[in-house]
Amino acid sequence: MFALADEGTLAHQRIGDFTTEAGATIADVSIAYQRWGEFCGDPQGKNNVLLVEHALTGDSDAATWWDGLIGPGKALDTDHWCVICTNVIGGCNGSTGPSSIHPDGLAWGSRFPAISIRDQVHAEYFFLEALGIHQVHAVLGGSMGGARTLEWTVLFPETVSYACVIAVSARSSAWQIGIQTAQISAIVRDPDWHGGNYYATGSSPNAGLAAARRIAHLTYRGEQELDERFGTMPQAGEDPLGPFRDEHQRFAVQSYLDYQGDKLVERFDAGSYVTLTDALNRHDIGRDRGGLNRALASSMVPTMIVGVDTDILYPYHQQEHLSRNIGNLLAMAKIVSPVGHDAFLVETRQMDRILRNFLTLTQQVPSPDELAKKRGLFNI
Amino acid sequence: MFALADEGTLAHQRIGDFTTEAGATIADVSIAYQRWGEFCGDPQGKNNVLLVEHALTGDSDAATWWDGLIGPGKALDTDHWCVICTNVIGGCNGSTGPSSIHPDGLAWGSRFPAISIRDQVHAEYFFLEALGIHQVHAVLGGSMGGARTLEWTVLFPETVSYACVIAVSARSSAWQIGIQTAQISAIVRDPDWHGGNYYATGSSPNAGLAAARRIAHLTYRGEQELDERFGTMPQAGEDPLGPFRDEHQRFAVQSYLDYQGDKLVERFDAGSYVTLTDALNRHDIGRDRGGLNRALASSMVPTMIVGVDTDILYPYHQQEHLSRNIGNLLAMAKIVSPVGHDAFLVETRQMDRILRNFLTLTQQVPSPDELAKKRGLFNI
Repeated sequence: MFALADEGTLAHQRIGDFTTEAGATIADVSIAYQRWGEFCGDPQGKNNVLLVEHALTGDSDAATWWDGLIGPGKALDTDHWCVICTNVIGGCNGSTGPSSIHPDGLAWGSRFPAISIRDQVHAEYFFLEALGIHQVHAVLGGSMGGARTLEWTVLFPETVSYACVIAVSARSSAWQIGIQTAQISAIVRDPDWHGGNYYATGSSPNAGLAAARRIAHLTYRGEQELDERFGTMPQAGEDPLGPFRDEHQRFAVQSYLDYQGDKLVERFDAGSYVTLTDALNRHDIGRDRGGLNRALASSMVPTMIVGVDTDILYPYHQQEHLSRNIGNLLAMAKIVSPVGHDAFLVETRQMDRILRNFLTLTQQVPSPDELAKKRGLFNI
Repeated sequence: MFALADEGTLAHQRIGDFTTEAGATIADVSIAYQRWGEFCGDPQGKNNVLLVEHALTGDSDAATWWDGLIGPGKALDTDHWCVICTNVIGGCNGSTGPSSIHPDGLAWGSRFPAISIRDQVHAEYFFLEALGIHQVHAVLGGSMGGARTLEWTVLFPETVSYACVIAVSARSSAWQIGIQTAQISAIVRDPDWHGGNYYATGSSPNAGLAAARRIAHLTYRGEQELDERFGTMPQAGEDPLGPFRDEHQRFAVQSYLDYQGDKLVERFDAGSYVTLTDALNRHDIGRDRGGLNRALASSMVPTMIVGVDTDILYPYHQQEHLSRNIGNLLAMAKIVSPVGHDAFLVETRQMDRILRNFLTLTQQVPSPDELAKKRGLFNI
């Protein structure tokens, strides 16, 4: 039998050396995770594990960033389900990433290789194996977490019984690569970036990271929601209409974006931001699999697709494309919200209904394994 | 009588000292312009002048950037119309702007004040007055040129008989302010910016200006058009999927955006880019006029509103808002195109139909002046 971390407590699991899809090796990788709800069932077979995948700047503390959705009696009911969330490889919240210490005692910095979404899933697979869990009931997540969820269904369909893919696409679009590269550029142009090796310099590319986040935030939020909140209002006590442009005299939306940038600087590492944004650029379910739709068609895991009607970053037509082409569509759901991409994090009531529906369906619709067994019985 | 510049030739008209809406003064302002087609009619009354307004990084050479639309036999037929296009105040293509020489012999730099869209229109009004033209048949333009066109109809309804407002809104949205501020930030964070006073340093904030343009370009182009062209293709001879992130190993869309950035650096001044982008942030037809819809309702100039269905920067609902609320709607037209905002520059066939229709309508629908005269006759 195996031992899981105490409920809600950050724990670490070493998975050894890890070689990326592109052929670089990261020595002695550790994956951080948290767990809520008791494990129940067969670690090799049917059990109650829900693997939750966080987004770009998220972390393993899913019960905080999805606090309306994870807990006793909530949609991901921890009285019934064992919810596990890992920090992604390349991150900065416990798992090995650019800010982690290399075996030589200094930060990895620029020596940390590029990783792909597939690498993230492989690392998580090795994590589960190391933990002793060889099967999960469902994997689910939004944005970068949705990309990982989708890769799970193609890389390890035998490990995952059901999947819920939220607010993401089958691959990066050119626009996403463009706007994500603009964010990377804002960071690497910061003189404090030092080619990614700023960890021992005593300073960090905070201005660049904040600038990246301000751009990103404009892709996370719907333009109508932002406009209804801020319009052309000046920030209180400031006059953005003065005779000379002055960056301290701002519109309210500028102040809001500055706040979002500063908040991220406090909690996130610029090196991880660059690494994970680059991983998003590399997202492509069709790579080396005969193209997008062939890869999607090959996915036999019953999968629910969820999108947001006002998402600028992952427009809804991308989720329509997924549901048209995925091999085993369990259901499709649309979040209707002015909020845009972030709706999967903030429209808790709609997400509650969607996730409850997802879990109900997973208990009504047989998985491919169960179907195979049933067919076997009829064949007797 | 008055003399106009030779056909197509860049000429300059001094308008004296100019005081901005916010109260700063720019000494000895000069406005550059070009003209195509012979003037015909009464400079004080009915004549054949079409005043074309350029966009953010445009210039007075309208017959080049709208080359399919301006010329003999084209929609703006220079055999019949006298097309005039000025370079905006604050620009860098002939009119006084931050890179121009201050009376003290050095560049204006940071001494050049903030300007608003209204300031741009006021300067153009003084230009026309100085030229001896006190009435124009129509004013038309897209994007920042559309904002100026709209302001013309409210500031000087007696000067403009008809207007065509393309791909713009009644005021900046919070999202526009956010993404435009991100562009300003990319420039002013460049160490070569020197607070706007780089003109004598021997270097320019080229990296910042290129970064700004890359962000801007992603708002000028539709995401589906970009994706159909580039998708996740690597740039020829480069590998963006290598074991380490490398800015010289790019996706095709990155190379395309780099090219757009570099091209702008060659032809545009960073100081003007900041000044004009800030002017866009300040765009608000409702300021000091009792709010947006009251200001729009007060506009008696027959105005055609044009939008693009896939415009991310000025979404079509903003043109719907304009046409619902403008006081004298001549017509509305939608450009259907995957291209996004830039469609008004590149969808020449659709723009040709729209502009021909606009000019036909201006000859069928009486202007408020003509209506007043007719009513006068009936009252006899």
